[in-house]
Amino acid sequence: MTTHQTMGEATSDAVAVRGRDLSHELIGRITFTDMVALEIQAQLPGEQERRILDAVLVALTEHGLTPTAVVARLTDLGAPGALQGAVAAGLLGAGDHFLGALDGCGRILQEWPEEADPQAHARTVVTDMRAAGFRIPGLGHPTHKDGDPRTRALYALADETELPSLTRDRLDMLREAAEEASGRALPVNVDGAGAALLSAIGLPWQILRGIALVARTAGLVGHLWDETSRPTAAALWAAAEAAAPYRAPSTG
Amino acid sequence: MTTHQTMGEATSDAVAVRGRDLSHELIGRITFTDMVALEIQAQLPGEQERRILDAVLVALTEHGLTPTAVVARLTDLGAPGALQGAVAAGLLGAGDHFLGALDGCGRILQEWPEEADPQAHARTVVTDMRAAGFRIPGLGHPTHKDGDPRTRALYALADETELPSLTRDRLDMLREAAEEASGRALPVNVDGAGAALLSAIGLPWQILRGIALVARTAGLVGHLWDETSRPTAAALWAAAEAAAPYRAPSTG
Amino acid sequence: MTTHQTMGEATSDAVAVRGRDLSHELIGRITFTDMVALEIQAQLPGEQERRILDAVLVALTEHGLTPTAVVARLTDLGAPGALQGAVAAGLLGAGDHFLGALDGCGRILQEWPEEADPQAHARTVVTDMRAAGFRIPGLGHPTHKDGDPRTRALYALADETELPSLTRDRLDMLREAAEEASGRALPVNVDGAGAALLSAIGLPWQILRGIALVARTAGLVGHLWDETSRPTAAALWAAAEAAAPYRAPSTG
Amino acid sequence: MTTHQTMGEATSDAVAVRGRDLSHELIGRITFTDMVALEIQAQLPGEQERRILDAVLVALTEHGLTPTAVVARLTDLGAPGALQGAVAAGLLGAGDHFLGALDGCGRILQEWPEEADPQAHARTVVTDMRAAGFRIPGLGHPTHKDGDPRTRALYALADETELPSLTRDRLDMLREAAEEASGRALPVNVDGAGAALLSAIGLPWQILRGIALVARTAGLVGHLWDETSRPTAAALWAAAEAAAPYRAPSTG
Repeated sequence: MTTHQTMGEATSDAVAVRGRDLSHELIGRITFTDMVALEIQAQLPGEQERRILDAVLVALTEHGLTPTAVVARLTDLGAPGALQGAVAAGLLGAGDHFLGALDGCGRILQEWPEEADPQAHARTVVTDMRAAGFRIPGLGHPTHKDGDPRTRALYALADETELPSLTRDRLDMLREAAEEASGRALPVNVDGAGAALLSAIGLPWQILRGIALVARTAGLVGHLWDETSRPTAAALWAAAEAAAPYRAPSTG
Repeated sequence: MTTHQTMGEATSDAVAVRGRDLSHELIGRITFTDMVALEIQAQLPGEQERRILDAVLVALTEHGLTPTAVVARLTDLGAPGALQGAVAAGLLGAGDHFLGALDGCGRILQEWPEEADPQAHARTVVTDMRAAGFRIPGLGHPTHKDGDPRTRALYALADETELPSLTRDRLDMLREAAEEASGRALPVNVDGAGAALLSAIGLPWQILRGIALVARTAGLVGHLWDETSRPTAAALWAAAEAAAPYRAPSTG
Repeated sequence: MTTHQTMGEATSDAVAVRGRDLSHELIGRITFTDMVALEIQAQLPGEQERRILDAVLVALTEHGLTPTAVVARLTDLGAPGALQGAVAAGLLGAGDHFLGALDGCGRILQEWPEEADPQAHARTVVTDMRAAGFRIPGLGHPTHKDGDPRTRALYALADETELPSLTRDRLDMLREAAEEASGRALPVNVDGAGAALLSAIGLPWQILRGIALVARTAGLVGHLWDETSRPTAAALWAAAEAAAPYRAPSTG
Repeated sequence: MTTHQTMGEATSDAVAVRGRDLSHELIGRITFTDMVALEIQAQLPGEQERRILDAVLVALTEHGLTPTAVVARLTDLGAPGALQGAVAAGLLGAGDHFLGALDGCGRILQEWPEEADPQAHARTVVTDMRAAGFRIPGLGHPTHKDGDPRTRALYALADETELPSLTRDRLDMLREAAEEASGRALPVNVDGAGAALLSAIGLPWQILRGIALVARTAGLVGHLWDETSRPTAAALWAAAEAAAPYRAPSTG
């Protein structure tokens, strides 16, 4: 039986998604979050999985005026009427630097060798990454120095839904090793917490960035609609142009 | 009080979205679909609104191997490891031709003059658009000639949740006028049904395309994850290249 | 003979482009500007055409820290190592508002009815566009109020190469009609001059935006390389964030 | 003196690019290829450099119906009238897999230790890359098994302009080592030849992909203009859909 693997297929009187009848089994019966899970995992999530996925999606949707939001607004200024272009431009900045932590942290948590001494493994990971010049993904935050409030909220839900703590425990050992090595506090940030929770519900680390892209698309659509009632792009451009360091007068 | 209009803002111990505390009021307490509505409408949806929005998002997520999915898969072939680029490329094809029907149909339904004779207005719209060479958005489907099964599912939910029928009624008058003018069946398709339902829950027509982009991002992420386990891009490329009409041998 | 229409085709020992042998007829024998013309017009340009196309491409390459350059730099900040993504994001803002003038002005110049009284036609175009709320494309500039220096340079080359003046004459009548209607100086800007010259060498108005995209890609690549030695993206982001009008504290 | 580093700056009566007056020194006086070099290298190229850069740009412009061209055409089908979106989508596939060879090969040639035995170094590079599972960039071609005709044309120009042969010699040693290790012919392909020549004129390896993006933008604009007169996107889509392996009937 391979039908369940088919992404989507249309006949004259039905559309099937992952082997399920879209009109009779899905529309009106499942939430969009269920659909996100179905698209990736080829099966509907349970109550626990859905609540975790909902929470992570909610946590990643809106981060204020990040570069991705600035980019979407500036793109709309130059190419009005092509919403998909402004959203696409914004998503293009959601790459290794901004969303990579989700993948990177999820990879560490998922490739953790079960047979190893976990604390020793955590120290090895930290030592190796620091030697290679990398920051440990999922830890630390420039604004939330005393702990990311979104992490607390996500972890509270994980406790409430009795989500297995394995990946959170691994992340905590990673945090301890990183704090010991760097000599400063590196609390688990929202990317780290998201990686731990999504790993615990079985999402492969390679696709964690995709979850963030779904959330970010909603955030960008929100910003672009906000732009129509409170245009900021021209002011953003003027500020950026005025700030450009290389526009300083020649010094010689 | 303008705080409620702020999209997102972070302080050292809190993140606010649309004036609500992300960690205490939103994460773990609302669904992602609620968050989509909050981003655009600056307030949380009621039960009815959420169910309608869920259903439309579910209906628009996966359409099989559409050009947007082909584009995302081919882009991943050339630029592996940059998921955001493949998703962005796919979204760029979600423009006037593929998603425009949602906007276009929503606009007709929302700009409908209340004081006019509705059937006369429907005929005027159809006549004007046909004269200008446009198809009526939201009507007809190349595959689902006897009615789009997704429309039936969406309308059933609208009935079940007792959604006001005003926009569906308008769309039906539009359908009758279009069928009369063209002499053939033009059932309400999923874009038309989506436009009618999203209009009924108060979403402005200008942002309807954005709802589809959120759904489509989830669909593209699904296709890109599917591509890792069952690669199709090379076969898609070979088929496309072989089919290119201009590769036919020179005729003279 | 249809071979000349083939864009490109590879056999084991040759690559043909528009019916010409890439290795024996093109590489090392023509300039890239010739190749741009060959791609679009399916034939190599003459000396006059090449010089005009070179001049317009040079004029459109670099405009300082425009939104497209800001977008490319911010995208690179979030997704380093994916140059194609940062360039693509920048190009997405090169739409109706920023490059549309080239298309729009070219269209007016190319669809000008030969049999009409040209000054009367110019006044009609201006009246109609103003009534519809549009600015006249190709005229006026926020910085270069006394005339765009690039226009003077482009026109000087047109004179030097004895380019037919028909489209420039039409644009001048359009300028006169627009200045009369608005009561202020609206000198021909670089988009207008580019549209007039590219129209005079036979490029269809529908593709004029494409010429600008080629030039702008070179400009964005320049900005992105500059970003590696003099990073500005973080400062641009900080300035944009600080300037966001909606970040002002709540007023009550 | 830092003015020469300024990318672009506009005052009311002049535009400066890299410290040069755009209107008086550049428009009508330099070719677009000169401008590409000026944008990246902050100085105008000499005759030799310009001819090499022209030749590489010409060689990289058009490769027939590659995935990037298919993507651009399919995007235009879904979002007509947004040329920048279709070009951007196409460029997004010009990533590590398709253009990475240019960067990767250029990096090897530019980071080659001068003090080492060159043949021993070539063997070390080949051994290390093969051990890591990578192909050697710039070598071999699925279609041009007996040698890439574009390489011959580029090398002929390099000889004609008396370009220093250092990077070509290094690439040849790399080819020998790779052929020895793999036991099959791996001729220098157009990416390898381009990397060798662009390295010889002083372009840093990090920006070689940018040169290809400029060329490819011209190619995509050509394809999109061709699409307007000979539409192929619908046929490409139909062929891709029919070929999708996962559409095969369920087997159980």
